[in-house]
Amino acid sequence: MGLIVQKFGGTSVADIDRIRNVARRVAKTHDQGHDVVVILSAMSGVTDNLIRLAGQATERPEKREMDVLLATGEQTTAALLAMMLISMKYPAQSLLGFQAEVRTDCAYGNARILDIGADRMKALLSDRKIVVVAGFQGCDTEGNITTLGRGGSDTSAVAIAAALRADMCEIYTDVDGVYTTDPNICSRARKLNRVTYEEMLEMASLGAKVLQIRSVEFAKKYNVPVHVRSSFSEEEGTMVVNEDSDMERLVVSGITCSKNDARIMIKGVPDQPGIAAKVLVPISDAGIVVDMIIQSSPKNGTNDIAFTVSRTDYRTALEIEEKIAKEIGAEAVLGDDSVAKVSVVGVGMKSHAGVASKMFTTLAAENVNIRMISTSEIHISCVIMEKYAELAVRALHTAFGLDKEEG
Amino acid sequence: MGLIVQKFGGTSVADIDRIRNVARRVAKTHDQGHDVVVILSAMSGVTDNLIRLAGQATERPEKREMDVLLATGEQTTAALLAMMLISMKYPAQSLLGFQAEVRTDCAYGNARILDIGADRMKALLSDRKIVVVAGFQGCDTEGNITTLGRGGSDTSAVAIAAALRADMCEIYTDVDGVYTTDPNICSRARKLNRVTYEEMLEMASLGAKVLQIRSVEFAKKYNVPVHVRSSFSEEEGTMVVNEDSDMERLVVSGITCSKNDARIMIKGVPDQPGIAAKVLVPISDAGIVVDMIIQSSPKNGTNDIAFTVSRTDYRTALEIEEKIAKEIGAEAVLGDDSVAKVSVVGVGMKSHAGVASKMFTTLAAENVNIRMISTSEIHISCVIMEKYAELAVRALHTAFGLDKEEG
Repeated sequence: MGLIVQKFGGTSVADIDRIRNVARRVAKTHDQGHDVVVILSAMSGVTDNLIRLAGQATERPEKREMDVLLATGEQTTAALLAMMLISMKYPAQSLLGFQAEVRTDCAYGNARILDIGADRMKALLSDRKIVVVAGFQGCDTEGNITTLGRGGSDTSAVAIAAALRADMCEIYTDVDGVYTTDPNICSRARKLNRVTYEEMLEMASLGAKVLQIRSVEFAKKYNVPVHVRSSFSEEEGTMVVNEDSDMERLVVSGITCSKNDARIMIKGVPDQPGIAAKVLVPISDAGIVVDMIIQSSPKNGTNDIAFTVSRTDYRTALEIEEKIAKEIGAEAVLGDDSVAKVSVVGVGMKSHAGVASKMFTTLAAENVNIRMISTSEIHISCVIMEKYAELAVRALHTAFGLDKEEG
Repeated sequence: MGLIVQKFGGTSVADIDRIRNVARRVAKTHDQGHDVVVILSAMSGVTDNLIRLAGQATERPEKREMDVLLATGEQTTAALLAMMLISMKYPAQSLLGFQAEVRTDCAYGNARILDIGADRMKALLSDRKIVVVAGFQGCDTEGNITTLGRGGSDTSAVAIAAALRADMCEIYTDVDGVYTTDPNICSRARKLNRVTYEEMLEMASLGAKVLQIRSVEFAKKYNVPVHVRSSFSEEEGTMVVNEDSDMERLVVSGITCSKNDARIMIKGVPDQPGIAAKVLVPISDAGIVVDMIIQSSPKNGTNDIAFTVSRTDYRTALEIEEKIAKEIGAEAVLGDDSVAKVSVVGVGMKSHAGVASKMFTTLAAENVNIRMISTSEIHISCVIMEKYAELAVRALHTAFGLDKEEG
């Protein structure tokens, strides 16, 4: 008997039949004697429809009001699941973000959870009620409605699990776990039984879309055991846990691939102290996050500076650099938004040499040119031309011994 | 310069273009220097769709969860109007029921407003903000979401106007005011410039659908001037006000017609003390409201008892009476759900004799048989066969001098 937090994503509550399926699963967990808190996303498509509706109202919807609008999506599913459970004779009650006391800062559209006042949920649980919480939403100290950004329901779930010291946080989704790489790209991808918080964090930030990054940060910080699994099967999924000695020790756990980046290169920058700051500060002043940065060795008193930004910021960043290039007398600004970032991730890399060289050798053998490289303790990323992305993923997957057994 | 509360019904916010129309009207009022609080209904059709969705989830949706679901309708329009106003460079902010501190009892689905904490609205108004409040919803002392029943946004508007001591509460709707009778039935119906709270109350309870009854009670109690007008024109509508000596003195202000009633007659009830209670107490025990009651004079030791209930309760009431009739040895139970209630309403009736006799004479002249009669200080109602309803309304409208001038 424990306390289980179950989070169901948009595809798991896409229509009334699927919500009924969720109700059955929740009821079964309750029948087993567990206390259950359910966190729900909006029905898939609903959030996009609301964004479209706001777009008809105004080109730039004000953020506070956008959150009021978007919060209706999760409110709807929470009410529907609760009334369904009640009609099945299970004691259930829905709570919206403000009622579940999910307190956030006031960064509308992308708010961060500050703390969760678990009293009301605990009181309901002590009555053996199933608590159905609208995910993705919270409220700030003034009582304004906030939302947590794309995938925010994952973070709602893990944060609530942490606040309630739940025994398990189950994330139900339309895939049956975390894979060594995207099965749509590589048919030999296999499901991982376990993955560490660190690996999951790297994978999430490098392009894997299974969990919102912030939810993994929360899980790691509060040591919440997370189980990523399918809402359409009874199969065990992937456990996201602390690193321990028992773990299956792969050097590399996964290969990720992101096509969200664009690369900008300023050629022939005068080789002067402080010139990199001149090139990059205006970018961060414009609120644009720079990912990788490379500065070439000076040659004839100039060098080249290249960096990557997300594709949505590409045009703006390019305009800024074209202006700067004139000011500092650089030779040219080149941009490329058809690049991909391929990464290998694994906690085993910490204690294992040769991962980088194996990665470079593998890509070279496929004639894939590496444009930029970045590394951390547990990942190596290469920027390559977008058209080689799938080839690179498959080659690396095989090279690092991740392919599943045939048959 | 004053404080104006403007309420827009479902047809006034039916789509983005109409919401834009509302935004323009609100902005204009703000431009004139007034402080403005806007109360919105859900887009027309949305509430019915949500009820249908709940019906797919379960046959009998639990009431608390139903309110959580229904409240999304008004939340959507409030957010859309606020973001539209902001994009037009007007300072606006939406407030949901709990944020506007509309505190109610916990009668989910039909909650009553207990009080309104106007502090937050006042603070926003003192910053010259346009406050956009989601109508129809409130919250109970535990912070649960409640709704106020069909037409509840009218009550939200008048109650908020009362709490803020607003100078005017404008109810924008798809008709241009309160009419002497339903213009769909009688082409000679004319718009009333003024009507008293008492008359409006009677008209609302007797079948006129312009305003929710409770909103008129609130307006009367707190003396809130209400202006019922069209959101599609600039024309003045109807002022609902206190009776005063200046008022246009019609004996009868309006004719209403309701087809919501059904009539049940128990024939041959033994003429004993307490027999009426035996017949009627089980009806009220079943939560059914009885409207009119008539007991005939005894004849051969028995009499007939007839009463009306709403049509939705007709079948249940009939079954109850059939059982009782057997118990008390009554002769027969007759039911008729094709009746209509036609009423004449007017504060002038208080000081004017002959209204009843004119009503009966007029109906008789049209060969309309009166089945039951009830009266108050300012109304007389007759139950007649449903098929005569429109004829009766038109005849009475002419007889009491309400027809508009030709041309």
